Amino acid sequence: MAPGLLNEEHNPSGIPVSKKNVVSTRELVESEKGSHDIVLKSFRLLIADLCQQFGGGHPGGAIGMAAIGIALWKYVMRYAPHSPDYFNRDRFVLSNGHCCLFQYAFLHLTGYKAMTFDQLKSYHSERYDAICPGHPEIEHEGIEVTTGPLGQGIANAVGLAMATKHLAATFNRPGYDVVSNHTWCMIGDACLQEGVGLEAISLAGHLQLNNLTVIYDNNQVTCDGSVDLVNTENINDKMKATGWNVIDIEDGCFDIAGITDALEQSKKSDKPTFINVRTIIGLGSKVQGLADAHGAAFGVEDVANMKRAYGFNPDDHFALGQPVRDFFDGLPARGNQYVKAWETLVGDYAKEYPDLAARFQKRVKGELTGWEELIPKSFTDKPTASRASSGLVFNPVAEKIDSFMVGTADLSPSVNMIWPGKEDFQNPNIKTTCGINGTYAGRYIHYGVREHVMCAVSNGLAAFNPGTIIPVTSSFFMFYLYAAPAVRMGALQHLQVIHAATHDSIGMGEDGPTHQPIENAAYFRALPNLLYIRPGDSEETAGAWIAAIKAKGTPSLISTSRHKLPQLKNTKREGVHKGAYVLEENDKATLTLIGVGAELSHAVGVAEKLKQKGIEARVVSMPCQRLFEQQSREYKRDVLRRHRMPSVVIEPYAPNGWERYADAAACMTRFGHSLPGTSAYKYFGFDVDTLTTKVTGYLDQLEADELLRHEFVEI
Amino acid sequence: MAPGLLNEEHNPSGIPVSKKNVVSTRELVESEKGSHDIVLKSFRLLIADLCQQFGGGHPGGAIGMAAIGIALWKYVMRYAPHSPDYFNRDRFVLSNGHCCLFQYAFLHLTGYKAMTFDQLKSYHSERYDAICPGHPEIEHEGIEVTTGPLGQGIANAVGLAMATKHLAATFNRPGYDVVSNHTWCMIGDACLQEGVGLEAISLAGHLQLNNLTVIYDNNQVTCDGSVDLVNTENINDKMKATGWNVIDIEDGCFDIAGITDALEQSKKSDKPTFINVRTIIGLGSKVQGLADAHGAAFGVEDVANMKRAYGFNPDDHFALGQPVRDFFDGLPARGNQYVKAWETLVGDYAKEYPDLAARFQKRVKGELTGWEELIPKSFTDKPTASRASSGLVFNPVAEKIDSFMVGTADLSPSVNMIWPGKEDFQNPNIKTTCGINGTYAGRYIHYGVREHVMCAVSNGLAAFNPGTIIPVTSSFFMFYLYAAPAVRMGALQHLQVIHAATHDSIGMGEDGPTHQPIENAAYFRALPNLLYIRPGDSEETAGAWIAAIKAKGTPSLISTSRHKLPQLKNTKREGVHKGAYVLEENDKATLTLIGVGAELSHAVGVAEKLKQKGIEARVVSMPCQRLFEQQSREYKRDVLRRHRMPSVVIEPYAPNGWERYADAAACMTRFGHSLPGTSAYKYFGFDVDTLTTKVTGYLDQLEADELLRHEFVEI
Repeated sequence: MAPGLLNEEHNPSGIPVSKKNVVSTRELVESEKGSHDIVLKSFRLLIADLCQQFGGGHPGGAIGMAAIGIALWKYVMRYAPHSPDYFNRDRFVLSNGHCCLFQYAFLHLTGYKAMTFDQLKSYHSERYDAICPGHPEIEHEGIEVTTGPLGQGIANAVGLAMATKHLAATFNRPGYDVVSNHTWCMIGDACLQEGVGLEAISLAGHLQLNNLTVIYDNNQVTCDGSVDLVNTENINDKMKATGWNVIDIEDGCFDIAGITDALEQSKKSDKPTFINVRTIIGLGSKVQGLADAHGAAFGVEDVANMKRAYGFNPDDHFALGQPVRDFFDGLPARGNQYVKAWETLVGDYAKEYPDLAARFQKRVKGELTGWEELIPKSFTDKPTASRASSGLVFNPVAEKIDSFMVGTADLSPSVNMIWPGKEDFQNPNIKTTCGINGTYAGRYIHYGVREHVMCAVSNGLAAFNPGTIIPVTSSFFMFYLYAAPAVRMGALQHLQVIHAATHDSIGMGEDGPTHQPIENAAYFRALPNLLYIRPGDSEETAGAWIAAIKAKGTPSLISTSRHKLPQLKNTKREGVHKGAYVLEENDKATLTLIGVGAELSHAVGVAEKLKQKGIEARVVSMPCQRLFEQQSREYKRDVLRRHRMPSVVIEPYAPNGWERYADAAACMTRFGHSLPGTSAYKYFGFDVDTLTTKVTGYLDQLEADELLRHEFVEI
Repeated sequence: MAPGLLNEEHNPSGIPVSKKNVVSTRELVESEKGSHDIVLKSFRLLIADLCQQFGGGHPGGAIGMAAIGIALWKYVMRYAPHSPDYFNRDRFVLSNGHCCLFQYAFLHLTGYKAMTFDQLKSYHSERYDAICPGHPEIEHEGIEVTTGPLGQGIANAVGLAMATKHLAATFNRPGYDVVSNHTWCMIGDACLQEGVGLEAISLAGHLQLNNLTVIYDNNQVTCDGSVDLVNTENINDKMKATGWNVIDIEDGCFDIAGITDALEQSKKSDKPTFINVRTIIGLGSKVQGLADAHGAAFGVEDVANMKRAYGFNPDDHFALGQPVRDFFDGLPARGNQYVKAWETLVGDYAKEYPDLAARFQKRVKGELTGWEELIPKSFTDKPTASRASSGLVFNPVAEKIDSFMVGTADLSPSVNMIWPGKEDFQNPNIKTTCGINGTYAGRYIHYGVREHVMCAVSNGLAAFNPGTIIPVTSSFFMFYLYAAPAVRMGALQHLQVIHAATHDSIGMGEDGPTHQPIENAAYFRALPNLLYIRPGDSEETAGAWIAAIKAKGTPSLISTSRHKLPQLKNTKREGVHKGAYVLEENDKATLTLIGVGAELSHAVGVAEKLKQKGIEARVVSMPCQRLFEQQSREYKRDVLRRHRMPSVVIEPYAPNGWERYADAAACMTRFGHSLPGTSAYKYFGFDVDTLTTKVTGYLDQLEADELLRHEFVEI
């Protein structure tokens, strides 16, 4: 029976298929059983060879999971090697990303064009253009998300499954399941230990994501030894208690039919499924079953012995015989059939539901239009907390533009991200005690007190397809530190996620030093490909959101205040897009004051006070260092004028990085203090009077000590 | 029956107590039942008043947990209000730290001297010297750890319980349980959602910490609404599957006897215990049972109505009648008995085991001696990875000095922190598959792939008693980002924890951009009260460890390379203690090169190449910015000489913060790339030839454009 045939499980959405082409997955597996042995052996030796050639890498896991891979790529997953990005493909996430050779080898065998044999063999080589990095990277064909830092992938997979649920609930109609893909995620023991993985599991169980299958490569080996060194819980019972369907596979090294059955069965569950597959790490090597099989090549002799034991020639490397090639041969053709069937379905859908289909196509293409005019053109003069300004700016957009899905880590009452008529993204079977219910079509996500998974899931939502979903997250700025590894992964993957961070200053007050961010901004300002934006009032908040929404390949973190800020008369949204701009010019100035975010008005106040003392100062607003760095040298010099006069930045954060723009800083090099906001500002000398004294003191010091001009001073 | 009496459960270690003074806890509770109603009501109204006076704070949780508090402080916990730091006290951790008034009120009622009635009433006031911040802080009497960021406290509690297990296993002898305290931890729903909390639960179950009781304030309310919005798992089943003893309490608002029984019962379990206590948030308020009761004062009228309903005068505020005062009256005296009994026990122990008792007393006092001479005075000339140098430097200390407990997040083979004869800290009932077993007396901790809880647990180990345990953690530098919130909490609390972070450069190679730190250091350099130290060779690694071990109130992060580094001839351990020092002086220099850590030798190499081109440069090594900042202005000027010549720093990290010390940087403003280490350096221009070209190019630019002297340049 030709491997490229559609079978009934693979036949998407009831498209007619000629009878003779329809076989069950089980029949197909049975009919090909004779080939499994040679394919398994060849695959395992290929992995051993790939690590051996440059004497490094992670062979053990990929070898242990060989049978799982065959079940997935040959029998169960719906994908198209020659249309790797087709919209309704199943998503596969390798959360144990160090086992990347597992995925690379299957991408090669199943016919992904980019993954040539030469490329496959570039693993651990010095090739600059290799597409086989040490962990899978989203840039390369067939990779859905970049993984490696453990626990991230499973959280991304939850996001991918949520994306499907949401799009299906929004766009599918009877007979037209235009979005119906499944998400498959491989994990090792680490994803069951890392907090972000545990958050993801808990959330997926709650949401009843029955379009998600997590396959646990249960080899009981960890870097330090056996898993029972560190984890002896009953994982199946734990998963059941968390709302998951659990399936056991005892012989994960060879039982392709059993694994295939389990995978197919998982698609029919009403819960997410956890398949606990017992495997042997590094099967066939002399270090099989040991930690030594995890992260090092086996050695020339061991690999040769594996080959002998398998009946292969020990001197042949990367041997993939014709039977192996034949086994995978028809998969691009099968993939093309999936694509064609889906396109036919979408074509018919467009005839029956033309408006809906137009909306759908817009989302498929990731088009975003008509949003900028929804943002208020001006604001009242009333002092407004910038977290409230965020709501004023963005909620009209969220209300009308379906691309946005907005989440919060249990801070709905604080972050102001609820638009009129918002509907929750929720498991529709849940009827909550508080009476707030929803469906999968909803676009407001309660993540619980799970900041890390909120951001990691958002990466998955964004990775589903470029621009189809633009996720927004929200929490206190301080708690983005919990989520920093996921924010980083979003920046690394060029995923557009917008993080709405509130309570971003010691002005947040009574919650005290545990909640007052001091050094957080230094991290996010240093993070490549992230826009950290601190707007100073409502107008700048509008600028911040516009910049973030326009930044297609870049996540943003918009950092706002808990407390009310005055509306400043010269702030400009366009100024924000340049990162910094002159807020108050002054031809007689002998000093530049740089103001930022919640304390921008403090800089303006200091300039006024200084004027009363006969010192003329100009004021620069610098909401985003990264955007400013992208401006021309001329613009930057014109804004800062550092060759003409000293500049002082005012921000109650760690000063690290401000030395680039200022000669002195009113800043914080210690943690905050629990006091009401205004008192906290006073306590640390961030009231306008004290700041003014500090600035004049600095100017006096500059007069007295010429060398200070070459140094950065904390005032 | 007088409340100050010892009873049998409270009688530590079999010290004889006169018969008439011995009552069971249950008898005591029964005998006082008549008082419970007035105490509960008074406590709840006190909380409502405390929030109402300044119109803010978190009343609901504290009110809901009143009965739990009475069971703990009146009947079960072993503590001494007038000797708050007595060594063998029970430790109480309020992991739901926003409910701090719960703890503050009980500290006041039970007679802690610092917590006067005036101080209690300072909550949310503008008093700079208040000891009632918005979350409990370790600086204040009766507070074991600072909590607030959710999930941290429960992880600290696991660390505190581990400290007890370890010290008990090390020092107790038959009849002499000199360390026998219990750890009690209150949590809300968030600690069951946050990843770090879930990691802590998993670890505690594995380690069978039966001296730990976690009390779940199960009020089913979260900020966004009811908990079932975000979590519908079967928590009891989940805890059981994770190795916990589970006890249910149905009426947590009033059933003091039932709660007391459960708490006492938990001390007899062979597992950690989870007590699931159903409570009603904000009981008695009109918003009882609702999210509105969580984070805002109830309003004047609501509080008045509560008082009326309870039969109190609505115009009386902070009313604590004599019956309430009497109820708590004897607790300082009872505490003094505990202290005296323990001191007697320790005195007798010293007679029977004088050597052991001397060691014990040294640990109790937190004395650390004889360690510095264990550190090698010199090293071979052989190129050595600084991660290996770390082992050479520190393992001899770890071997001999019992104060150190060393943990790893499943990277034992990579981090080189194993000393000869190390014994694991392990649940002695576990016989692992890999055959690596241990006891609670062991000092090497396998944390699993749980970086966040590793660092949070270490805070608990350090907080047990100053200097008794100095925890060391280890992982790749990149993964300290997962643990950053816990590292921050350690710095905030002045806890000495040493983090040994390896693979700290793009030179770590093939694992690629997910594992190559770029912006991490910017965070840790900005974090107040942390020493981030990047040593350049073995000698500097010795300096780094010496600085870290001497930093009693400051955590350190020692950041080392995966790859081999040459041993440089002028490096000095004493130089590290000053943060930066002149490695190669040159009177004819026109340029300062700043080298750091794994790339320090690159700076030395560039200076040599420049010399060949006729450019004289001096080389400064700057392993620690924070320590350098602590030096005198004169020293700093002498090292940097910025007024005399330009300086260029070489570090493949985000440059943020280097602008303070350098005019230009060879740095990274993008993510890394998966390549072998040497190739990665080349790919990004961090080989000596390319660096030299970049430096000369910069000098040319400086000549051509005078304004550049006022600007920081990335080269």
